[in-house]
Amino acid sequence: AIAKPAIAQSSPEIKWRLTSSFPKSLDTLWGGAETFVKAVAEATDNKFQIQPFAAGEIVPGLAAADAVTNGTVEMCQTASYYYVGKDPTFALGSAIPFGLNTRMQNSWMYQHGGSKLLDDFYAKFKYIALPAGNTTCQMGGWFRKEIKDVADLQGLKFRIAGLAGRVLQKLGVVPQQLAGGDIYPALEKGTIDAAEWVGPYDDEKLGFQKVAPYYYYPGWWEGGTVIHNFINIDKWNALPKAYQQILRSASDTANVSMTAKYDADNPGAVRRLVAAGAQLRPFPQTVLDACFKASNEVYAEISASNPEFKKIYDNIVAFRSDEYLWWQVAEYAFDSYMIRARTRS
Amino acid sequence: AIAKPAIAQSSPEIKWRLTSSFPKSLDTLWGGAETFVKAVAEATDNKFQIQPFAAGEIVPGLAAADAVTNGTVEMCQTASYYYVGKDPTFALGSAIPFGLNTRMQNSWMYQHGGSKLLDDFYAKFKYIALPAGNTTCQMGGWFRKEIKDVADLQGLKFRIAGLAGRVLQKLGVVPQQLAGGDIYPALEKGTIDAAEWVGPYDDEKLGFQKVAPYYYYPGWWEGGTVIHNFINIDKWNALPKAYQQILRSASDTANVSMTAKYDADNPGAVRRLVAAGAQLRPFPQTVLDACFKASNEVYAEISASNPEFKKIYDNIVAFRSDEYLWWQVAEYAFDSYMIRARTRS
Repeated sequence: AIAKPAIAQSSPEIKWRLTSSFPKSLDTLWGGAETFVKAVAEATDNKFQIQPFAAGEIVPGLAAADAVTNGTVEMCQTASYYYVGKDPTFALGSAIPFGLNTRMQNSWMYQHGGSKLLDDFYAKFKYIALPAGNTTCQMGGWFRKEIKDVADLQGLKFRIAGLAGRVLQKLGVVPQQLAGGDIYPALEKGTIDAAEWVGPYDDEKLGFQKVAPYYYYPGWWEGGTVIHNFINIDKWNALPKAYQQILRSASDTANVSMTAKYDADNPGAVRRLVAAGAQLRPFPQTVLDACFKASNEVYAEISASNPEFKKIYDNIVAFRSDEYLWWQVAEYAFDSYMIRARTRS
Repeated sequence: AIAKPAIAQSSPEIKWRLTSSFPKSLDTLWGGAETFVKAVAEATDNKFQIQPFAAGEIVPGLAAADAVTNGTVEMCQTASYYYVGKDPTFALGSAIPFGLNTRMQNSWMYQHGGSKLLDDFYAKFKYIALPAGNTTCQMGGWFRKEIKDVADLQGLKFRIAGLAGRVLQKLGVVPQQLAGGDIYPALEKGTIDAAEWVGPYDDEKLGFQKVAPYYYYPGWWEGGTVIHNFINIDKWNALPKAYQQILRSASDTANVSMTAKYDADNPGAVRRLVAAGAQLRPFPQTVLDACFKASNEVYAEISASNPEFKKIYDNIVAFRSDEYLWWQVAEYAFDSYMIRARTRS
């Protein structure tokens, strides 16, 4: 018998590093990276090993994408909207105010050309992006005082980033940038008035209900926030085609399992938070209307000077309109009935 | 250099056959099988090849699972509820009246132990089940006359199968069994009064709006119907662990992409159907309430004599209650606002 070079070449031993934008304490988000690297290792008999690093271990969380551009690491797990400072187009890859819900995000990326549009944009940063998770619809955050009308937003110091911060600025909010660990003391001292994080299960770990009990919904700026694997394009192109497919399907595994985990873990968390003093509040209709109007103004401003943003944004908005035309028929009617039936029984 | 038997053993050349319960004309459902086998072939450099066969090519569509039990084929793509004639527990694997929506199905199976419960049941039929698609919430079907109250169900000859047929029988409906191709002429002649199929994109191919224009929603018996890959347990156990993982992730790829395709294709179809004469109608609240009550009666009857059904059903119902407690907060509030905003703008 002689060696089989074809087999040896198609299944080479490869070691990569993945840097994540998320800490290990967020087992939802970080758990997605673990699920992904495990699926890749098992599918290749441990020949393709990707070592995952949490935010800050080798690269700061918000520098993850830069590390992929530079080739410091082969790939990262991140949220595209962290990089809106470079270009607001990045927001379109994860979530925008009044954007798509979780399933619509997948449908747009996988079946409506969304991933292609995003990859065309990401090319200048030297990576491709595989959908690899979703936080599901987030909450609107924790507030020390109730928000009863648009006037209550005036001067509100709200820990919120990205495009949503820019939208809320139009309504008098003063957006604050704070790392996760600094939010609780700032809310406690009253240095800030409100803070948004993710949803019940992730928020519960930070105990905000003790210092800012009004827990608003929905997080209209995060209807279904996509988590991506960004992969350096040169490293991607150098892989055997089989390994590329294994990365794609392992990302799909991470995507479906992260969404499933949020859906499984959030109900218990919301129950416990309410028992611990959180007071659930829907944003008033007047506030949502003002935010929707301000969002459209922001989109018009950006689109006027950024044709790449405009191209992808217009595609999303047309898709969103079609989606909700249909969504309100079977899906929404089913959920509506089930919600009513639950409270009756 | 000498041969590397470890590598040769871990990537053997394997050929399997997959028989589907679906015809090639349904590119949504059949497309899931194509997506799956392509992902497996690409991930293994064509060493693991699964040849897919449409319903009837080698095995009749509704005998797909039996062919896996018997080892005639290694695996099939099917909907578990096709086999309720053997045991109503099969319905719990795909969809039951007033059950879970699409994301909840995934969450239950992947993260709440649902797949484990189902596999324990499927073991006696010698297969395991990997989730591999979802039709999303289906429509309630096509009716020759409007359904304005529960009394309109009396004597209604409705092409509908499974548990939903049994539920509707309690309200006077006479369930009819007809293959897909026989439905149109039966509706045209008035031999039957109504028929359910899937949702807009799949239904459009059959042209029912010409002979039964009232298109009801939601399909309360199919809130998010799961499509599974059933795999013969002996064939599964004989696979290298790497190939097992590749089958798992390729099934996840099929799952997320089928859902995404339904979400992408249904909006255009519902538009075209309405333009062609379909008249969308929500089931009246009184009808839904009567069907919900009748469903719970059916569940109680089956549970009284079938402990395996009861065990899994009780697990689903407890999960459903938790899910909708949370769902009505962020997800539903977000969708509600987006639906209202769409019609305003």
